[in-house]
Amino acid sequence: MKALVYGGPGKKALEERPKPEIEENSDAVVRILKTTICGTDLHILKGDVPTCKPGRILGHEGVGIVDKVGSAVTALKPGDRVLISCITSCGKCEYCKKGMYSHCTTGGWILGNKINGTQAEYVRIPHADTSLYKIPAGADEEALVMLSDILPTGFECGVLNGKIQPGNSVAIVGSGPIGLAALLTAKFYSPASVIMVDFDDNRLKTAMRFGATATVNAGKGDAAATIMAMTEGRGVDTAIEAVGIPASFELCQEIIAPGGVIANIGVHGVKTDLHLEKLWDRNISITTRLVDTVTTPMLLKTVQAKTLDPKQLITHRFTLDKIMDAYETFGHAADTHALKVIISAE
Amino acid sequence: MKALVYGGPGKKALEERPKPEIEENSDAVVRILKTTICGTDLHILKGDVPTCKPGRILGHEGVGIVDKVGSAVTALKPGDRVLISCITSCGKCEYCKKGMYSHCTTGGWILGNKINGTQAEYVRIPHADTSLYKIPAGADEEALVMLSDILPTGFECGVLNGKIQPGNSVAIVGSGPIGLAALLTAKFYSPASVIMVDFDDNRLKTAMRFGATATVNAGKGDAAATIMAMTEGRGVDTAIEAVGIPASFELCQEIIAPGGVIANIGVHGVKTDLHLEKLWDRNISITTRLVDTVTTPMLLKTVQAKTLDPKQLITHRFTLDKIMDAYETFGHAADTHALKVIISAE
Amino acid sequence: MKALVYGGPGKKALEERPKPEIEENSDAVVRILKTTICGTDLHILKGDVPTCKPGRILGHEGVGIVDKVGSAVTALKPGDRVLISCITSCGKCEYCKKGMYSHCTTGGWILGNKINGTQAEYVRIPHADTSLYKIPAGADEEALVMLSDILPTGFECGVLNGKIQPGNSVAIVGSGPIGLAALLTAKFYSPASVIMVDFDDNRLKTAMRFGATATVNAGKGDAAATIMAMTEGRGVDTAIEAVGIPASFELCQEIIAPGGVIANIGVHGVKTDLHLEKLWDRNISITTRLVDTVTTPMLLKTVQAKTLDPKQLITHRFTLDKIMDAYETFGHAADTHALKVIISAE
Amino acid sequence: MKALVYGGPGKKALEERPKPEIEENSDAVVRILKTTICGTDLHILKGDVPTCKPGRILGHEGVGIVDKVGSAVTALKPGDRVLISCITSCGKCEYCKKGMYSHCTTGGWILGNKINGTQAEYVRIPHADTSLYKIPAGADEEALVMLSDILPTGFECGVLNGKIQPGNSVAIVGSGPIGLAALLTAKFYSPASVIMVDFDDNRLKTAMRFGATATVNAGKGDAAATIMAMTEGRGVDTAIEAVGIPASFELCQEIIAPGGVIANIGVHGVKTDLHLEKLWDRNISITTRLVDTVTTPMLLKTVQAKTLDPKQLITHRFTLDKIMDAYETFGHAADTHALKVIISAE
Repeated sequence: MKALVYGGPGKKALEERPKPEIEENSDAVVRILKTTICGTDLHILKGDVPTCKPGRILGHEGVGIVDKVGSAVTALKPGDRVLISCITSCGKCEYCKKGMYSHCTTGGWILGNKINGTQAEYVRIPHADTSLYKIPAGADEEALVMLSDILPTGFECGVLNGKIQPGNSVAIVGSGPIGLAALLTAKFYSPASVIMVDFDDNRLKTAMRFGATATVNAGKGDAAATIMAMTEGRGVDTAIEAVGIPASFELCQEIIAPGGVIANIGVHGVKTDLHLEKLWDRNISITTRLVDTVTTPMLLKTVQAKTLDPKQLITHRFTLDKIMDAYETFGHAADTHALKVIISAE
Repeated sequence: MKALVYGGPGKKALEERPKPEIEENSDAVVRILKTTICGTDLHILKGDVPTCKPGRILGHEGVGIVDKVGSAVTALKPGDRVLISCITSCGKCEYCKKGMYSHCTTGGWILGNKINGTQAEYVRIPHADTSLYKIPAGADEEALVMLSDILPTGFECGVLNGKIQPGNSVAIVGSGPIGLAALLTAKFYSPASVIMVDFDDNRLKTAMRFGATATVNAGKGDAAATIMAMTEGRGVDTAIEAVGIPASFELCQEIIAPGGVIANIGVHGVKTDLHLEKLWDRNISITTRLVDTVTTPMLLKTVQAKTLDPKQLITHRFTLDKIMDAYETFGHAADTHALKVIISAE
Repeated sequence: MKALVYGGPGKKALEERPKPEIEENSDAVVRILKTTICGTDLHILKGDVPTCKPGRILGHEGVGIVDKVGSAVTALKPGDRVLISCITSCGKCEYCKKGMYSHCTTGGWILGNKINGTQAEYVRIPHADTSLYKIPAGADEEALVMLSDILPTGFECGVLNGKIQPGNSVAIVGSGPIGLAALLTAKFYSPASVIMVDFDDNRLKTAMRFGATATVNAGKGDAAATIMAMTEGRGVDTAIEAVGIPASFELCQEIIAPGGVIANIGVHGVKTDLHLEKLWDRNISITTRLVDTVTTPMLLKTVQAKTLDPKQLITHRFTLDKIMDAYETFGHAADTHALKVIISAE
Repeated sequence: MKALVYGGPGKKALEERPKPEIEENSDAVVRILKTTICGTDLHILKGDVPTCKPGRILGHEGVGIVDKVGSAVTALKPGDRVLISCITSCGKCEYCKKGMYSHCTTGGWILGNKINGTQAEYVRIPHADTSLYKIPAGADEEALVMLSDILPTGFECGVLNGKIQPGNSVAIVGSGPIGLAALLTAKFYSPASVIMVDFDDNRLKTAMRFGATATVNAGKGDAAATIMAMTEGRGVDTAIEAVGIPASFELCQEIIAPGGVIANIGVHGVKTDLHLEKLWDRNISITTRLVDTVTTPMLLKTVQAKTLDPKQLITHRFTLDKIMDAYETFGHAADTHALKVIISAE
């Protein structure tokens, strides 16, 4: 089968690989219908993710059709159309029982990282019963690819951890796909304002179209001062960090209101300063989280109910044999204005 | 001044009364700009509220302008435009400190009940600093009259107690003004479905206009069976009782899903059956509440942010000298299709 | 093997039965070391549990040693010492994912009810990985039998649902094993007072020994008035119903403070009155729950840490061949002062 | 009257000052019976608290008798015995209504900081109704001095923010009076383990006496490694920082388990490193808080119920005319083994 294979820092290729087989009796093999590329895949290609070894098939998102199941799989059968979660969950360990699938002792983020992933014709999914979700009849499968990772990430790490409430003020620092996913799901709770921050005016324009109430270009003037002015000097109730660098986390610390929450989504490569000398008496919380995908069933319901439209995040479409072009497009988002790219089997 | 005075069961009149004075140093006297009539006022007129004695000026809702303040009032001054809360809160007692203003030991629901109310040219408001809310500049004052009672009641007793979440299913039994207020504020949390129940097709039509996803006329066929079918036999996650009679509370028990919440708003005059023989192992909650108006600041923000449009609830307008007509219109809602009626000073 | 078999209303016998085998690949067969008798077993023998058919081996509690496992079992192996949960959980269905194991679509309370139970030499446990708990080395296995049902039931249905907090007042209506289990776990949260109610002075004496701060014999004088006096007319913050009859649920309604919670544990056979005419404006909650055993890992930790001593609940000990005597002793608790009886394999 | 007056960095003196008078009608003047010295007083004396100007009477803790009240005070009268909260709360502003008294727009921590404090014969208390608590009859007034600041601080900032639960593991970094106050109130929730960390063996010995389950001397060996070993490599569910320096906050980051909470109590003078490169995917929370004293009524109940014994924290006693000696003793705690010192009027 065709598969996009990581070849070490800076290297990737569309290669021919053997079709995966059932290895454990809780596995399923899934034929991929649609997959996508994540910012994390670009991190891997930079060599920033040491757990991902050369030779690995990339990708941790997608929808497909169950091809085979192991003997312990009871909730799925060949032919079922399924959403693949980026997080593999055994459903049995201490962490899974607490809803912290991200820390599953035999799962977590392993797809396209520690085991082969979804940017291929087929993928093997461990713990299939608890890591795949049946797609409701009549659902838009392309839209559901957004539920593999980006929407639960924005929702769980940003919106739920950020405790967004009706009438509250929110700032989302970073208006890339993850920041926009946080924006779309922040609207579930009817905040009074959502201020989007980025350096890219095109992304800020997209943010307004997605429901932001204001935008701040962090490259033009003092973003912190602008946001403090917008909130009458009070700051925001929730600040969501959706970039992953010290500067954006610093901005969150400058604009958080007393009693507020800084919800980190960004993947950070270096430490940052924490201004406890200013924040120790401000009654704030700071949260971190690797997405657990524990809200996938809830998000599926919101898509079915049309209170969430994930399709807005899709800007480009390719077939698997053109996946190198898809990477090119996604990797140059500033020029191509790409958010999420869909890669179809055919 | 002119005032609508309760004269005992079945009797009311627009009378001339002395303008109220400051009695305690935490009082304010407010000149009423706009008030309205509540279902509870009709209860009083039926003689169902023994704490309300003949001679009482009715009304516990309204907006106005502060006319005088006592010496202990620090947050308000004459000339301030204010929203009058239906609940009087001292801000000092054990209950107020816990946010249970409804049980304030020297307040609670006293306006138009144990002391003179707002259906008059002026009203005395005890504990003014903590029972009045400054109106933001530029706000639509007519709309804000809906925040005195009906919207916090629907929101606190129905929506918050009912723990409505994105993607969940909701049924609201009773589509009068209170049920509709619950509907409007339920939408804050993006439920997948809100099924409105009533006997009156006109109210159900209004409910659809306000954002219900389905309606059930309880007078036509088996409402419980219909709702169970709508939810694939599962029942609803939240059932809100907004009538106040045993039959509607029974319906809630029949349609509640395992793990769900029955949130009672209705004012009940008699006991009801609780089917513990069916519900003991269903992991449900039942909640009761007299509105605390603790969410008034939050609701004010949602109105300012235009995520809530209270004005939809207003169907008729009168001046104070026509308040007897206003009662007539409001009291015959089935014919007049009245929801809330606004009574203006002039 | 020997097994205690239900023979229809009023009938039970210790019989010879074939040893159970693995039926599904997620099953385990467990050799029973110790089991016990539950009040629910007496309900079955009265004919009150129609899902339990004649011929069924009774019992849903116990500790044992894993004898065999199916091919899908990964967390356990023969020889492991395990605690058997009274609730069978698949770990995969919508309810299990929400921590509502009691409503597992292929589990729930099935042991000794819909399938053969633990009052035998061996038992087959479906969904073994998620329904059995490994016993920590050095644990007192007899004490852990109390964690199969009674302690999680008192804790989840009574204490957690009842939202017991430091400094709060609690009444537990019913001082049988379940009420006492609620008492023991209520102490986790350092309430200021726990008032135990019963008709049996011996049980109330036991309750004092277990840490109650006061007792009320409901057969002597007006229990509601006594408790209201004890709480200076305020009522209790949490009232736990641990009997299962209308009278005790009525008492809870009479003594609940504004803002309080009535947490029902009792198994009710008939409906009860709900005094909404008094409670509609009291800001209370009423909760029901079939134990989920979702707190079993937490309870295991408290036993290991010696913050919970379950052994206090054990009053009598028998071997399996004397289980008919054990039923006799447990069934006449008023005379024998039995709380929980341990039945050992040998 | 006699009063301990701050004279600028390094300077203090017991001076004669005029007795305070009612200035606002919500004020009370309280005759001090007992007060104490806080670590924060030492900070002021180092010159670290710029809001506290030379000439200020120090002290923000104490119990006393109401001497005079302003005309707006309704909950108190001369002769009432009261606990003085370290936090002044108006009960009316946005923050007070949310229970965030620490950020009261006309209060917060002002006593002995922005206005004269309690280390004197009399003190003026603004917003008296909502900043003083009536002492229950028969209470041990000396013990209640611990409820002015230290116990609510340990409880709110450490224990409540730290979400301590039955069976959980806790580490408290810093075993001074605040860390010990956190320990005493952590026990409310029956954690399985509380590991106390300090450099002073005497304080660690005290911690064991107060109920710690283990201690770690941070000066002997690798504290992080020791705690990780104690928790089988998992880390602690709650890490409480009770020192206020980067090193202790770093330790908390090293020992926090996935899903855990770092609850900061310490007053920090400089920024610290936040290791987001390690923590971004660990699902942790970090909280900060200036005590709100919103739990003072709850703590009063626990003292009355004898589930909390604050008196254990008192090691030395002085009269007001010997307050300079009291400072000497408290300021050299390593030698004197002082925890809290009581200063009595006579």
